[in-house]
Amino acid sequence: MKKLLSFAAMATFSLHLNAAAPLFTPQQLEHVATIRDNAMQSPLAFDILTSLTTEVGPRLPGTANDKLAVKWAQDKFASLGFDKVWLEPANFPEWRRYSESGSILTPSLQPLHLTALGNSISTPKDGITAQVIKFETLEELIAAPDDIAKDKIVYINYRMNRDIDGNGYGPAVQARNSGAVEAAKKGAIGYMMRSVSTSHHRFAHTGGSHYKDGVTKIPTVAIANPDADQVARLIDLGKTVSVNINVQAESLGQGSGFNVIGQFNGTDSPEQYVLIGGHLDSWDLGTGALDDGAGVALSMASAKFVSDVKRPKRSVRVVLFAAEELGLWGAKDYAAAHKADLNNIVAAAESDFGADVVYAFESNVSAQSLPIVREIAKQLAPLNIEYIGKNKAGGGPDLIPLKGAGSIPVFDLHQDGTDYFDYHHTADDTLDKVDPAKLQQNAAAYAIFAFMAADAPFAITGK
Amino acid sequence: MKKLLSFAAMATFSLHLNAAAPLFTPQQLEHVATIRDNAMQSPLAFDILTSLTTEVGPRLPGTANDKLAVKWAQDKFASLGFDKVWLEPANFPEWRRYSESGSILTPSLQPLHLTALGNSISTPKDGITAQVIKFETLEELIAAPDDIAKDKIVYINYRMNRDIDGNGYGPAVQARNSGAVEAAKKGAIGYMMRSVSTSHHRFAHTGGSHYKDGVTKIPTVAIANPDADQVARLIDLGKTVSVNINVQAESLGQGSGFNVIGQFNGTDSPEQYVLIGGHLDSWDLGTGALDDGAGVALSMASAKFVSDVKRPKRSVRVVLFAAEELGLWGAKDYAAAHKADLNNIVAAAESDFGADVVYAFESNVSAQSLPIVREIAKQLAPLNIEYIGKNKAGGGPDLIPLKGAGSIPVFDLHQDGTDYFDYHHTADDTLDKVDPAKLQQNAAAYAIFAFMAADAPFAITGK
Repeated sequence: MKKLLSFAAMATFSLHLNAAAPLFTPQQLEHVATIRDNAMQSPLAFDILTSLTTEVGPRLPGTANDKLAVKWAQDKFASLGFDKVWLEPANFPEWRRYSESGSILTPSLQPLHLTALGNSISTPKDGITAQVIKFETLEELIAAPDDIAKDKIVYINYRMNRDIDGNGYGPAVQARNSGAVEAAKKGAIGYMMRSVSTSHHRFAHTGGSHYKDGVTKIPTVAIANPDADQVARLIDLGKTVSVNINVQAESLGQGSGFNVIGQFNGTDSPEQYVLIGGHLDSWDLGTGALDDGAGVALSMASAKFVSDVKRPKRSVRVVLFAAEELGLWGAKDYAAAHKADLNNIVAAAESDFGADVVYAFESNVSAQSLPIVREIAKQLAPLNIEYIGKNKAGGGPDLIPLKGAGSIPVFDLHQDGTDYFDYHHTADDTLDKVDPAKLQQNAAAYAIFAFMAADAPFAITGK
Repeated sequence: MKKLLSFAAMATFSLHLNAAAPLFTPQQLEHVATIRDNAMQSPLAFDILTSLTTEVGPRLPGTANDKLAVKWAQDKFASLGFDKVWLEPANFPEWRRYSESGSILTPSLQPLHLTALGNSISTPKDGITAQVIKFETLEELIAAPDDIAKDKIVYINYRMNRDIDGNGYGPAVQARNSGAVEAAKKGAIGYMMRSVSTSHHRFAHTGGSHYKDGVTKIPTVAIANPDADQVARLIDLGKTVSVNINVQAESLGQGSGFNVIGQFNGTDSPEQYVLIGGHLDSWDLGTGALDDGAGVALSMASAKFVSDVKRPKRSVRVVLFAAEELGLWGAKDYAAAHKADLNNIVAAAESDFGADVVYAFESNVSAQSLPIVREIAKQLAPLNIEYIGKNKAGGGPDLIPLKGAGSIPVFDLHQDGTDYFDYHHTADDTLDKVDPAKLQQNAAAYAIFAFMAADAPFAITGK
């Protein structure tokens, strides 16, 4: 929906166009510089991340650790001096991984490093043992004759490619989302895929997967890249490869948790707010440092950096979403709960792509808001962040439900994702993968963005 | 023991000193050049390595895979055209890992990535649960009061340092060899150490460990570096850290296997030989690509490269030692079996340090052999291998028993080990960690070395 500019905003905007008066005052820009300098010297974001990933650890939705994380977040917001800290309920389908293991049985006994995909059913107690049938892509499987995989375990060999913006994820993730359904349609008793991964280390990558009503549910796992190479090489050598896959997991029905929210109130229009955040939950394998402890830590820290220098006109709200990994459940509940006042959001950006440097800034806003965007971009430039003028930002996964509910102005602070899928959804997503200096640059960027959007002469609006 | 030079050798040597006549003829040096060029263009070593690590996989001594590997090696030697292929018996204490897992229980539930050290006893079926007591070094543990660890799990936090020659391994490995003994002396019910590792990935590193008569045997494990960081951080925060460690493993008493040996016979003095090789066994976690599939592959390939160009005067023998990982058992049996004719060895070098480039060449030979060494060094220089003139080479782990049995001339083709301890003894030691081009350089270096030592004008002798 298009929104009308308020009279005041129109006036400011016209003034800008007509007289080229600066949108931000010298004082405001001085605040920006102070915020940037402070943020670039502060270990706060890394300290927050250390605390979350060490004292809580993994945070699968619905687990005791998930509840610990909620408590941790409330306490952390409070100790950082946020004006308001509150919980909003979030509901999601609970799933638990209890154990998992695998072996290549023929032509020789070899461990198989695998992980169950989220939502997988269990195998029988001793696992399933069957011959592996290999397909290079999900499309090849779909195109194959019915019953081609009867009583076999389907294996998809597709390898994700590496790039700065993670563009290899989309093509690869289809096999994770719906591979088990397509395999079951061909008679398979199990589904195994090369992990959605750019790593050459022996970690399997988990992630969400889905079943379909009317199609037999079969256990579904991903194997590490070196194991995938091994299985593919053996099959290409003409060997009959049989494997045992053992997954013990359970769907527990609907569970509940909370989006945890902290806010520094604005001085003039506190009901209007900049929304920054990340998701508080993580997969159970690692400690969710990159995904998404970093987003949690840097958004908490950046709001604090703003507040320490100058309380802006509008509020800065940090939303830590629940149950993102299981399907954006906290974000859906947030969007539903705030449907009536979405136009209070003057800017929104979620950080959920690791902790490497922010290298580009992009908006997705109304045309009349672009002058403000360009001013923000100018202030981000000293952090080696370029401005992408396409005005097509996505905003982050947890903003998808919000965008679906209405027009909101969203932003991308694009992070370098070249290495992100080396660690994503693995046991290896741990604190040591985060470079404190890079996290500082992220937090500084978010602080500048949040301050300027919250203190801008008129409210940014969506398209 | 010092050996007397033969009359012929003395004559050649004197001639060299007196008249500066070249030690190697232009024809011989042409052969060297051809061997080098062929080797640098051949994928043979990597092909052999691929075959071993794919078709056999892990090769823990005494397992079915170990027997497969012996068969594989015999077949490979035969298919490469070695003149003689034979087995020599090797005896070793068998040990098996059945399962292992761990968790941090307090202050929050977190998986603990651990692996049992070789020779560890089992825990009870449900593992052992106890509070962790941290020591920074083995020495700190030894110096601590008796009973300090009563009913606790001792944790040693010492971190190995990274260097090209692996000099950090020695100081770190003491805690692996005897940590469980020292912990038990202080009343501990379990022993846990930071892996002997330079990696920041979440792999635990196994390796040999020992118990001592009269000291209670306790389960003994290593944890991955990120887990070690986590445990240390939690303890440093003042938290009470309790963990559960579950290891199911078994010592099976004496087992047997084989050193597998292939030889290209020399034309003039076939009883004299250059010994090159690696160890055929590996730990069970990875596929033993770096440790020591690479050594196996490059020594087999390099002997073949020599033979393809010119059969030298003396034999080139490739020895694939059994059960190195459990304590050099195959090497001990080889040394015992060949005690009477050790002086047939005119040069020996084992490759057991991964597959990165050879950057230096060093001998440990009699003074009168040094002119030949220097000629070999000259021919290795085009491969970017420098000559280290200290004449103090170690020769490789499986040569230790041979050196103990008598004076043999040994050589180091020093490999860059900067990254070796990222993978050593982990599940991540897989084929993809080997750069084919670097392995080719290794094989070329070994081929040149083997040819020149085997075709030298007089037999190299030990100190």
